[in-house]
Amino acid sequence: MLDEMGKAAKAASYQLATLSTAEKNRVLMTIAEQLEAQSAEILAANQQDLADARQNGMSEALLDRLMLNPARLKGIADDVRQVCRLADPVGLLIDGGRLDSGLRIERRRVPLGVVGVIYEARPNVTVDVASLCLKTGNAAILRGGKETYRTNGATVRVIQSALQQHGLPAGAVQAIESPDRELVNQLLKLDRYVDMLIPRGGAGLHKLCREQSTIPVITGGIGVCHIYIDVSYELDAALKVIVNAKKQRPSACNSVETLLVNQAIADAFLPALSQRMAQEGVKLHADALSLPLLQQGPAEVEAVKAGEYDDEWLSLDLNVRVVKDMDEAIAHIRQHGTQHSDAILTRDTRSAERFVNQVDSSAVYVNASTRFTDGGQFGLGAEVAVSTQKLHARGPMGLEALTTYKWVAYGDDTVRA
Amino acid sequence: MLDEMGKAAKAASYQLATLSTAEKNRVLMTIAEQLEAQSAEILAANQQDLADARQNGMSEALLDRLMLNPARLKGIADDVRQVCRLADPVGLLIDGGRLDSGLRIERRRVPLGVVGVIYEARPNVTVDVASLCLKTGNAAILRGGKETYRTNGATVRVIQSALQQHGLPAGAVQAIESPDRELVNQLLKLDRYVDMLIPRGGAGLHKLCREQSTIPVITGGIGVCHIYIDVSYELDAALKVIVNAKKQRPSACNSVETLLVNQAIADAFLPALSQRMAQEGVKLHADALSLPLLQQGPAEVEAVKAGEYDDEWLSLDLNVRVVKDMDEAIAHIRQHGTQHSDAILTRDTRSAERFVNQVDSSAVYVNASTRFTDGGQFGLGAEVAVSTQKLHARGPMGLEALTTYKWVAYGDDTVRA
Repeated sequence: MLDEMGKAAKAASYQLATLSTAEKNRVLMTIAEQLEAQSAEILAANQQDLADARQNGMSEALLDRLMLNPARLKGIADDVRQVCRLADPVGLLIDGGRLDSGLRIERRRVPLGVVGVIYEARPNVTVDVASLCLKTGNAAILRGGKETYRTNGATVRVIQSALQQHGLPAGAVQAIESPDRELVNQLLKLDRYVDMLIPRGGAGLHKLCREQSTIPVITGGIGVCHIYIDVSYELDAALKVIVNAKKQRPSACNSVETLLVNQAIADAFLPALSQRMAQEGVKLHADALSLPLLQQGPAEVEAVKAGEYDDEWLSLDLNVRVVKDMDEAIAHIRQHGTQHSDAILTRDTRSAERFVNQVDSSAVYVNASTRFTDGGQFGLGAEVAVSTQKLHARGPMGLEALTTYKWVAYGDDTVRA
Repeated sequence: MLDEMGKAAKAASYQLATLSTAEKNRVLMTIAEQLEAQSAEILAANQQDLADARQNGMSEALLDRLMLNPARLKGIADDVRQVCRLADPVGLLIDGGRLDSGLRIERRRVPLGVVGVIYEARPNVTVDVASLCLKTGNAAILRGGKETYRTNGATVRVIQSALQQHGLPAGAVQAIESPDRELVNQLLKLDRYVDMLIPRGGAGLHKLCREQSTIPVITGGIGVCHIYIDVSYELDAALKVIVNAKKQRPSACNSVETLLVNQAIADAFLPALSQRMAQEGVKLHADALSLPLLQQGPAEVEAVKAGEYDDEWLSLDLNVRVVKDMDEAIAHIRQHGTQHSDAILTRDTRSAERFVNQVDSSAVYVNASTRFTDGGQFGLGAEVAVSTQKLHARGPMGLEALTTYKWVAYGDDTVRA
């Protein structure tokens, strides 16, 4: 079955690659319309998924994430309309010129071909990924969380009917409509047809893909993010940035998990931090040096445990460690970080540049919250995923990350000497 | 042992990433000098490798490829001096700007970190890869063909002594100095330290890496390349391009393996092709339609066998197939090609553009030989490998392909709203 899907997707990708931006936008507008016009079927499928999930004891928070209603569906349709407004990277020339051989050469942006995406039980991601793939002329094979397979199936059928209205094949966007996990394993081996695989989910899914997939994989999304507070930063400014990085959305991968505090300012800074964190409801996990200083303030504090530097809290918890100097901070980040987003707070230009150069993360911040690592915030207009590997794309992936390039060479009976 | 190598490489990579272009070039110049000054040890190790290889029955052609002498070593050293002259991509800004949030953002080119390369028994590749990695601030772990492990070890020790003269760690360039294949399997799992893996070798090695490696892999180097001869091309011009694409270096991955001939010109073209190929000593493997027409000429011709469209000949053999039209040619290329290099010979602008857009290969040629797919020919100044996958790099990989980017964001206590 997966083999048939792969074949259909590859065939569709050839057709999608030849569409103009205007043609692709017309398809996207029809998809947006049809998501609203055919909402009844999607909502009915969603009701079934919800009923099953409730019966299986899914938490209210997760049920809410899974749930669609007319207003949410309209929001999803509006997001598709927004994708129409984004600039299309396909066809852009990256570089080129005339070679000594007389050959005229160009590096031209082209779609990747077929993109596979494995994601959690969020019905909006189905439409989101499909519209970004279509905008860039890619076919998509989607495997959403097993709790939403009916919703995803119904949604993709609406998208397929819109595609067919424009004479495009249903193979352009396909969902794996089954909760069977074995199909995921099959998808991972579909390198004959799938050009890129994006897992969006927890560390376990990323590990599975890295170990089992024969398709090039983009891994990321796990963020153990740090803020290092250097000697020269004002206390109030530091607290403002820290509160934002921790509290603005604690469950996000770009929220801060560990503060590294220069020992020269620890005596003044840590009691004030404790004060503020108590107000904000943040629980602190302190190393031996910071523990007594934090305990001078009212925050809930306990000694940090083994492994707590290496995992995301994704909650109102924050590790605090006193470091001797910036080198110790950088060494900590190298050892415990996930190369996602790390920040320095400093007024010293040399410290700033050294941190930027030596911290090997997708996004490195000077005097700013780590919460900006996001396609929308970075001006990409969209976000397919956040990559923490180094090949192909790093950090937030916009439309460009859904393309590759092709060398095109024009000659006149040109031969190699 | 591999784990220790990985750790040392990662540590070295942090130091290499901070070097200026001038500093890196000074190291490269010392490496070039030392390869000449310390040639005795390298040549002695090479003699031992050669003696073993001869005893194991290696062919004279392969022995020659393995063999070093003072002249070849000087050539290798000169290649290192040439790498000094290449532009350093590290530190370049890809793009950037000021965001609505007030954040000033940059996308800055940075080294990948640690690059692993697995290659055949060619001692020059050791120095070539090491110098390209150093030029781009990357550490390298090298595993050359098992028949050259002593030569590679001696060569890398010379490189390491040059590194240490400049205060750089030996971990920056390391060779796996053992013919044990189990170490390759260990290297494939070293994702904790190695950022990119480049296999240079046959289809089997690429398959092994794709299936077993947990490190992002660049695969490529297998070229089943096609030339499609459209209705409007002059016979002599076509023969000139075909002879170049087949004969200029038959063992290269960018040499042509299959001609696809439009049926409208088959009657005139194929007897002339047979005439010319007989002169050039090229044996033809013909489909049912082309066979009788080719047999009108003097070339050695036999019927093409199952599977022969799908493999590289790498010799003076050439498949010939008559196709109904360009669509059939494109369908053939999609089914049998390896997305390496494919060409159309046509005087019709519409045919040219349609072929360029619909053939999904790393390099697509109009009216030129496929033999140009090469880092040097494409003006990249160097070639790390030729990628036929779509992630990260496609076609000939120059220095840029040994880099990634980092998002750097400067704020002033900037927080997300």
